Amino acid sequence: MKKGMIKVSVLYPNGENKTFDMDYYVNKHLPLVGGLLGDMLKGATVEQGIGGAAPGSPAPYAGMGNMYFDSVEDFGSSFGPNAEKIMGDLPNFTNIEPIIQVSEVLV
Amino acid sequence: MKKGMIKVSVLYPNGENKTFDMDYYVNKHLPLVGGLLGDMLKGATVEQGIGGAAPGSPAPYAGMGNMYFDSVEDFGSSFGPNAEKIMGDLPNFTNIEPIIQVSEVLV
Repeated sequence: MKKGMIKVSVLYPNGENKTFDMDYYVNKHLPLVGGLLGDMLKGATVEQGIGGAAPGSPAPYAGMGNMYFDSVEDFGSSFGPNAEKIMGDLPNFTNIEPIIQVSEVLV
Repeated sequence: MKKGMIKVSVLYPNGENKTFDMDYYVNKHLPLVGGLLGDMLKGATVEQGIGGAAPGSPAPYAGMGNMYFDSVEDFGSSFGPNAEKIMGDLPNFTNIEPIIQVSEVLV
């Protein structure tokens, strides 16, 4: 994604008794979010955690989802009115409370 | 980046008395890492934290750096021998101990 774009990261921290259904996330949640955000959403990526810094160590995050927007305003105006629907889908695939980060793409 | 690639994320959690020199990170640390990892590194991105989920809330992470590799083996063989040099540069731009996550790109 291009320098200056806004990246909204949704990180799902791993932990004891934490569950995350990646199949549902990719095949159901992502299309739901994409449909609700429409043209304001310029791109999305998903990563599955497979490890930490040391070989064989667990991944700090079960998964990460990233959404790209042209501006913070575009994120707010598209996500805000749909936040309840989107966040309401979370219990369908995870019991993890995600960390949400808004970033500016520098490189 | 393409499905199946390995993404190594280096996340710098924000906190009280935490410092992060983004100028040094982008203009000195990134070229250092790129030079050491060479052709094994297929791409890199950097994001600066600007906020959290709620409007006006602080960013959970001061910054995030992401490196892409074709395989976990390529990451290990290029990063491993240079880990000391790379991690040794951290005190030059931050007092944050980063979280390192190895992920597989799904989408």
